[in-house]
Amino acid sequence: MFERVAIVGLGLVGGSIAGALRRRGSHILGIDRDPAARRVAADRGLIDRGSASLQKLPPDIEAVILAVPVLSILQLLETVDALAPPDALLIDTGSVKAPVVELMAKLPGAGRAVGGHPIAGKAESGAAAADPDLFCHRPFVIVPSDRTDAAAMDAARLLIGALDAIPEVMDAASHDEVLARTSHLPQMVASALALSLDPGDERVAGPGLRDMTRLAGSDVRVWRDIFLANRHNVKAAADNFIGQLEELVRVVGDGEAEHIETLMEQGREASTVLREVGS
Amino acid sequence: MFERVAIVGLGLVGGSIAGALRRRGSHILGIDRDPAARRVAADRGLIDRGSASLQKLPPDIEAVILAVPVLSILQLLETVDALAPPDALLIDTGSVKAPVVELMAKLPGAGRAVGGHPIAGKAESGAAAADPDLFCHRPFVIVPSDRTDAAAMDAARLLIGALDAIPEVMDAASHDEVLARTSHLPQMVASALALSLDPGDERVAGPGLRDMTRLAGSDVRVWRDIFLANRHNVKAAADNFIGQLEELVRVVGDGEAEHIETLMEQGREASTVLREVGS
Repeated sequence: MFERVAIVGLGLVGGSIAGALRRRGSHILGIDRDPAARRVAADRGLIDRGSASLQKLPPDIEAVILAVPVLSILQLLETVDALAPPDALLIDTGSVKAPVVELMAKLPGAGRAVGGHPIAGKAESGAAAADPDLFCHRPFVIVPSDRTDAAAMDAARLLIGALDAIPEVMDAASHDEVLARTSHLPQMVASALALSLDPGDERVAGPGLRDMTRLAGSDVRVWRDIFLANRHNVKAAADNFIGQLEELVRVVGDGEAEHIETLMEQGREASTVLREVGS
Repeated sequence: MFERVAIVGLGLVGGSIAGALRRRGSHILGIDRDPAARRVAADRGLIDRGSASLQKLPPDIEAVILAVPVLSILQLLETVDALAPPDALLIDTGSVKAPVVELMAKLPGAGRAVGGHPIAGKAESGAAAADPDLFCHRPFVIVPSDRTDAAAMDAARLLIGALDAIPEVMDAASHDEVLARTSHLPQMVASALALSLDPGDERVAGPGLRDMTRLAGSDVRVWRDIFLANRHNVKAAADNFIGQLEELVRVVGDGEAEHIETLMEQGREASTVLREVGS
């Protein structure tokens, strides 16, 4: 296993990775500009040492994990590549992969850089919500760039194994298109649904509405970056979804009882597949 | 408390009410055309006796609860009013109230008839999923018709208290408009979201997507009736929601980072209110 790992960003994802690796015996350097995040991570035993700055990245680090919002990943990649030892794995955790791996392919250390995306999360954010079991039995997507070498892929698999996650190799374009449907659109829908409520509606809100709006409590900066970095796929997914919803509204308006049942049955089957995979 | 109660429809709601009342000592006659539903309800101890037909409604029944899909409630109301003893409470549990209480006002027994709607549920359906605690500390909306008398309102409150639910009196128009936003639209959105997925997407589905599509597993006939009975409010709620979503998609497409944050913060605040009420 990795003896020394640096994690940039001590939010929910970075803090959870830190806790999982530290439990396996890795020495964790946690880098975050926010002193409160470093303090929480240290107090919770997620990291061994905190630092405010990338300048102090030690030369014996074996892996650097970028766990900041995706536009910050793009801003930091060159600096981190320059500061990390040449053989250290460089991996990120961003929810959009095409812009990240395009930039990774242009780095001097392109061979050791690989895109990553753990498919796990919860509505709470920050180091206080971090959970070393967050990735347990969950997919962790690996997206190589054109220049990622085999050793980096092996190192990424080793890292993912240490999180008890399941490695899933995808190309960047497929990842960003699928995740727009399965993650980025649902997030946007939850926010839009919360926005469409009137004051006082909570009086008669049931558990279904709480399920449907829980994601609206997610970290705003993280999602702002994801939407912006994947805007074309998100728009396509939203257009398709709005089309499905308008079709449902139309058949309801026209009183087409059988057509409503057919559409709902199809939706029911699609959701059943999800529940089977997730259980 | 009610000594003898008849419940028409032994699905999730009817079965759960049966179980809750029986636990309080009521004798429950469960009426359902489906022998499997009657058997499950009897085996689970939710009812004392099952019947396939309304014809056999005994003369000493003190309350009749209609817990069938909302269009079936409309079909059965006259028959049930004719068969139930004159002083028995007549209450329904349908998720749309305007057409129900309009019809109740026209019944010979209009005084003892009152609209009801327990705000509780889960994605699973049928007597097998029934839970006597389903309504515990949950709102149970009471909607009087123009002709509901005070004794019926008192009886409804007594019944709701026996479920450990919280009575909430509303008028039919407000109920149907609010519920379109808080329940009927979220159900439709969950189905449309499930319909907009591609085969194989479940490979990288996270807990957020499962939250957002869980309702798509709900009972199709129940929801078909709700959508049809409340189609105008549902369309208005859907149009408003689609407008909010399109606004979000537009500001993302235009790269308006601050505007994205503002909208997401507003959605976050609205969803926080819901979680506070539900906890």
